[in-house]
Amino acid sequence: MRNALISALVLSSGVAFISLETHADEGQWQPYQMPSIADKLSERGISIPATQLADLTQYPMNAVVGLGYCTASFVSPQGLVVTNHHCAYRAIQYNSKKEHNYIADGFLATSKIDEPSAGPNERLYITEAVTNVSEQVTQDLSQDPLVRYEEIQSNRKSLIKSCESDDNYRCSVKSFHSGLEYYLIKQLIIRDVRLVYAPPKSVGAFGGDIDNYEYPRHAGDFTFLRAYVGKDGQPAAYAKDNVPFKPKSYLKINADGVKAGDGVFVAGYPGSTSRYRLTSELKFASDWLYPTLASRYQLRIDTIEAMGDSSSEIEIKYAGTLASMANRMKKYNGLLDGFKATDIAGIKQSREDDFKQWLATDKTYQSYQAQLDRLERLLSKKRIESQTRYYFENAQSSTLLAAANKLYRLSKEKTKPDAEREEGYQERDMKMFKARLKRIDASFDTSVDKALWLQDLQAYKAQDNRVAALDAMLIDNQESASLSEKLDGLYSLTSLTNQDKRLAWMDAEADAFETSADPFIRLAVALFDTNMAQEKDKKTLAGELSQARPDYMKAIIAYYQANDWPVYPDANGTLRISYGMVDGYQAKDALYKQPFTHLEGIAAKHTGVAPFNAPQKVLDAIKEQRYGSHKVASVINDPSTWLCRLFSCLDKPEAFNSVPVNFLSSVDTTGGNSGSPVFNGKGELVGLNFDSTYEAITKDWFFNPSITRAIHVDFRYILWMMDEVDHADNLIAELDLVRN
Amino acid sequence: MRNALISALVLSSGVAFISLETHADEGQWQPYQMPSIADKLSERGISIPATQLADLTQYPMNAVVGLGYCTASFVSPQGLVVTNHHCAYRAIQYNSKKEHNYIADGFLATSKIDEPSAGPNERLYITEAVTNVSEQVTQDLSQDPLVRYEEIQSNRKSLIKSCESDDNYRCSVKSFHSGLEYYLIKQLIIRDVRLVYAPPKSVGAFGGDIDNYEYPRHAGDFTFLRAYVGKDGQPAAYAKDNVPFKPKSYLKINADGVKAGDGVFVAGYPGSTSRYRLTSELKFASDWLYPTLASRYQLRIDTIEAMGDSSSEIEIKYAGTLASMANRMKKYNGLLDGFKATDIAGIKQSREDDFKQWLATDKTYQSYQAQLDRLERLLSKKRIESQTRYYFENAQSSTLLAAANKLYRLSKEKTKPDAEREEGYQERDMKMFKARLKRIDASFDTSVDKALWLQDLQAYKAQDNRVAALDAMLIDNQESASLSEKLDGLYSLTSLTNQDKRLAWMDAEADAFETSADPFIRLAVALFDTNMAQEKDKKTLAGELSQARPDYMKAIIAYYQANDWPVYPDANGTLRISYGMVDGYQAKDALYKQPFTHLEGIAAKHTGVAPFNAPQKVLDAIKEQRYGSHKVASVINDPSTWLCRLFSCLDKPEAFNSVPVNFLSSVDTTGGNSGSPVFNGKGELVGLNFDSTYEAITKDWFFNPSITRAIHVDFRYILWMMDEVDHADNLIAELDLVRN
Repeated sequence: MRNALISALVLSSGVAFISLETHADEGQWQPYQMPSIADKLSERGISIPATQLADLTQYPMNAVVGLGYCTASFVSPQGLVVTNHHCAYRAIQYNSKKEHNYIADGFLATSKIDEPSAGPNERLYITEAVTNVSEQVTQDLSQDPLVRYEEIQSNRKSLIKSCESDDNYRCSVKSFHSGLEYYLIKQLIIRDVRLVYAPPKSVGAFGGDIDNYEYPRHAGDFTFLRAYVGKDGQPAAYAKDNVPFKPKSYLKINADGVKAGDGVFVAGYPGSTSRYRLTSELKFASDWLYPTLASRYQLRIDTIEAMGDSSSEIEIKYAGTLASMANRMKKYNGLLDGFKATDIAGIKQSREDDFKQWLATDKTYQSYQAQLDRLERLLSKKRIESQTRYYFENAQSSTLLAAANKLYRLSKEKTKPDAEREEGYQERDMKMFKARLKRIDASFDTSVDKALWLQDLQAYKAQDNRVAALDAMLIDNQESASLSEKLDGLYSLTSLTNQDKRLAWMDAEADAFETSADPFIRLAVALFDTNMAQEKDKKTLAGELSQARPDYMKAIIAYYQANDWPVYPDANGTLRISYGMVDGYQAKDALYKQPFTHLEGIAAKHTGVAPFNAPQKVLDAIKEQRYGSHKVASVINDPSTWLCRLFSCLDKPEAFNSVPVNFLSSVDTTGGNSGSPVFNGKGELVGLNFDSTYEAITKDWFFNPSITRAIHVDFRYILWMMDEVDHADNLIAELDLVRN
Repeated sequence: MRNALISALVLSSGVAFISLETHADEGQWQPYQMPSIADKLSERGISIPATQLADLTQYPMNAVVGLGYCTASFVSPQGLVVTNHHCAYRAIQYNSKKEHNYIADGFLATSKIDEPSAGPNERLYITEAVTNVSEQVTQDLSQDPLVRYEEIQSNRKSLIKSCESDDNYRCSVKSFHSGLEYYLIKQLIIRDVRLVYAPPKSVGAFGGDIDNYEYPRHAGDFTFLRAYVGKDGQPAAYAKDNVPFKPKSYLKINADGVKAGDGVFVAGYPGSTSRYRLTSELKFASDWLYPTLASRYQLRIDTIEAMGDSSSEIEIKYAGTLASMANRMKKYNGLLDGFKATDIAGIKQSREDDFKQWLATDKTYQSYQAQLDRLERLLSKKRIESQTRYYFENAQSSTLLAAANKLYRLSKEKTKPDAEREEGYQERDMKMFKARLKRIDASFDTSVDKALWLQDLQAYKAQDNRVAALDAMLIDNQESASLSEKLDGLYSLTSLTNQDKRLAWMDAEADAFETSADPFIRLAVALFDTNMAQEKDKKTLAGELSQARPDYMKAIIAYYQANDWPVYPDANGTLRISYGMVDGYQAKDALYKQPFTHLEGIAAKHTGVAPFNAPQKVLDAIKEQRYGSHKVASVINDPSTWLCRLFSCLDKPEAFNSVPVNFLSSVDTTGGNSGSPVFNGKGELVGLNFDSTYEAITKDWFFNPSITRAIHVDFRYILWMMDEVDHADNLIAELDLVRN
């Protein structure tokens, strides 16, 4: 079977020169699973005991923290935290003023008193416990799909409620293996986070969007923050006399780093993968969903860019939106290019065919063929429904309509007891709800919102899946006015663009909405029943899938185990560990990308024009070869044949003779792993994960070990920046530096 | 000194990761020099005796032939010749008709009777003798620069005349080391050349302009021709009953090819290099000449493309012109990028400084400092003169004016005895003179010629170095008509656009020109005195340089010898040998280009759109892995550490498991080396040289061994195309295939 898969891949991609060691280094493991892969860790030269990695109360896992959307880690006994520059971007932006532009110039607090708040919404989450609550969530569930769905939600909410009895904790119940298992995750919340040291954007995001997802890479994508707590040691909101948090442990940093062939592992909070999805789901994504989303995205990008060209105010307001859209577009393109380069659907199909054969012969799971057929029917239904809803959902894309929808829904939810309210509308959600409503103004412009909405409405008009309520309000009774003129009217009459008025609706009751003359509120009221009916359909289908998916997962897991393949749950934003090797890769025929980049590569890419505008202080230090104690004189970039490892390959391979900037490894990561600590085999910090290569983007669906590489900032570069460029001696003194 | 140079390079380029083994593999050697580098050949594993390579009457040098602008070689006892597809392009084009498009579809003659003429102007040149005639050319020369110049020309012409007593030979006297030495070269001319086998352009030029100068590369840049002679064995013009030429020898082809680390050498006719030029000359080229030429070129390209967009007739007529301009532009850009990436001027300056120190202390050459100063003064004068003349020379860029200039000059030269005429105007030149006048129509359009000329005239008008005669004719008396309208008048009144009338001027006497009403003829007559005066200035300066340059060369050669550096003359279109190693290179930080590309790389690049439109028959053979006996199963692409060579590196390196398409080596080549045979160490053919890498373009000025790579077609790919794709069994049977 394994050979069949390899042949399929090789033939379909036309790249016979890529050799495959299927599943090597694959897996985003739950920490408790580590002992089960102890032999694999050991093969990679990872010597820290697997049992130690499984224990969230021990070094190093108790030093790994979440930022909500990224990962970070404690690196000093005084609560110093390191993460990616792009993960701390909001904190740097928050502190940048006309007088001091920390984005452009970087920032270094030379003493704790100079460390400013990273902003009122910045949080650090320390995962203290992960408990299997599968039984509590799934026992005695109804056979009626909608009831079943609501029961699961209700069980989850009550588990969260009892866990969150203390305000300092955030709890969540996450589904693993598509509902086969549920875990309750308890996280301590640090609410006073401060900015300590950030390089200029021209270092932190050197290469910018152009280099995004690319390698060779030269980004100094790191920033130091610090966790503060009240004098009592308990989490507290920002207060001037708060004191640094004392973490249970903090990471040792190995200043000698790693070299090609060394085993490494990362810990972090990967967001989402689809590795166990069926071939039919992949085909839907590759043939319809991604192309459809990508073309809408491109249209939106083009529109915003064109409008930004003629208005600097729009350009500034939508800069962040555009940047994240560009990132998303590159990901879509990478997915589509990746599906073209490698016939992943073919590979998955051949695995699925083999799975069905196995099912037919396996005594325990023979009956599961029927469940698989049921799952395929449900998925087919889901695809049809989501295609049917697609244009109607987009037709509500106006930021103001989305806000009105949520506000009216809130007025309805508030009539229920808190425990029965929909997630997102409970008391625990209100702070974030408000913050989101406030934040609209920062990246909103009426003319852009209207132009984008108009595009979506026109696409809605051009297809057949119409909703009467929407047609009645906007499409049908057009009289003489064009749709565009009609929208102009809506924007001119609404008061939702006013922040105070917008927020005031949070306290309004439903009938206030139902009698309002605000055109966006009226539209929200008019669409409410349709939206609720569609939500009910979704919940019903989710209820059906909550039975079918776990059944499928049971069988597929048994099949994987029978093949001795790794079994780990798809990423779901929970703490995971993945391991691999420092390694280059064959990017194209005759084009080999080596694992480490050099300082000199920064100077070679430097043009003086952003995003290739390295600061003069960096260029000077490179030119003067001021490597300090961070110079690597040995050979670290060469293929790690056992011969080379044995004899140090003294003929052709070149000694590095510089400071490494970024490096590649085969660890298994995805979005959310940004900022994840990269450990050497002893569990010492050697880098920060921050990106992956373009060829690896399809790894969300299929892990191809020959081309899947994550990109890390080498900690030697961070230390060099601190030492030779920015003289952050105070911080270096805090770190626990070790050498080999 | 050597270390100083390396440091200079490393510092200036900011690429400390590039290590330098200065001068390794550098040198375009005259064959007679081979015994002097026998130890270097031997170090590279080249085992064929150096004395054998020095002998033009022995294998393999007597199988190497020139095409005038490219190199080729005999590969069968029946006069079969192999060269690049792009070198034989004219021959393929000449035979392409509406009924059979050999450019698009390729061509294979399955028997000799099907081999068509490659065209009346195709020639093969076999170098039979190279004789040092330095004494005959340079003895007893006058001290008056102009007289001296004329004496040298006269001596050269009389040597050529006596050598060319037999019509079957072409002779030339070439200057080596800038006039320090002269060699008389005697070449047998084959005048009946036929087309035998050419792949489709989509193979021969796969990747086209986009891949030009790039690597990884996948071009099947080969074509087979055949030399025919009269039944008496003597060269003859095409005649149906001519017979295949029997070469003195023909190359063995090693079907096992080479692998990374193997020594190789090429023989061919490199056109021109500037390695011994002074730093001041390099700076002039990099700071003024190349940027100036490049910006004029870009303007011309833009103009032709814009006019071609609105006229398919123009597009077709100027396709060849545009292609060669695009190639030239890429070369200019490569030169300018290369000068930016590496401070070659700095390297040359530090070497020059060291040379001056050496001069000051060397007993024999102490007095040469004065000669060097004189040379610098002359070069400075030359630069000023060429800048002064630049716009005036461009102002004569109209194809019709250039023709008129030459025709009027011819009428003047014809009044002199043949031996005293200017080169290019002697009886031996008349056939080519006529052919060139004829050929104008194929790539000429009045509106384009006018548009380009107008640009040059406007640039001339905008600067101060004006010529009264030109101003009087075109610029000053503009009355009401614009310059553009005036040019329209010239084109409408001339009869030079008519081929017969144009050719008729070859027989006209000077006074016919002087009384002609044809506006281009009138302009040529008006500019004649200025052009002749400028030519006289050039000749005078050349006469001065004919003393100063050889003096400088004497000293610099002594200095090089004192340093044990290679001494070989700059390329000048004469037969040379260069040696090197099959090797990849570090193209950028962390980006390593491996020496061999795979068949599968063709499929990966294939998009179906030219120039990435591989024929289906090629794609099918690749998909079906029909490698035949040409498959390489071993490891050939990996760095050639002595350890890997010893133990075959069985851990990381991958077996090739495909057919190699193109490969890289460190041999020292330049334009004119296209089609050159690439030999293994035993002197067996393993590939055809066809290009070099973008990073290597500056090698015309400075050979940087770490990044200078030539690109070759692997003969295994040629054999695979013949065998598995085109079934050219008749030709394969003719070849002398050997295995390791």
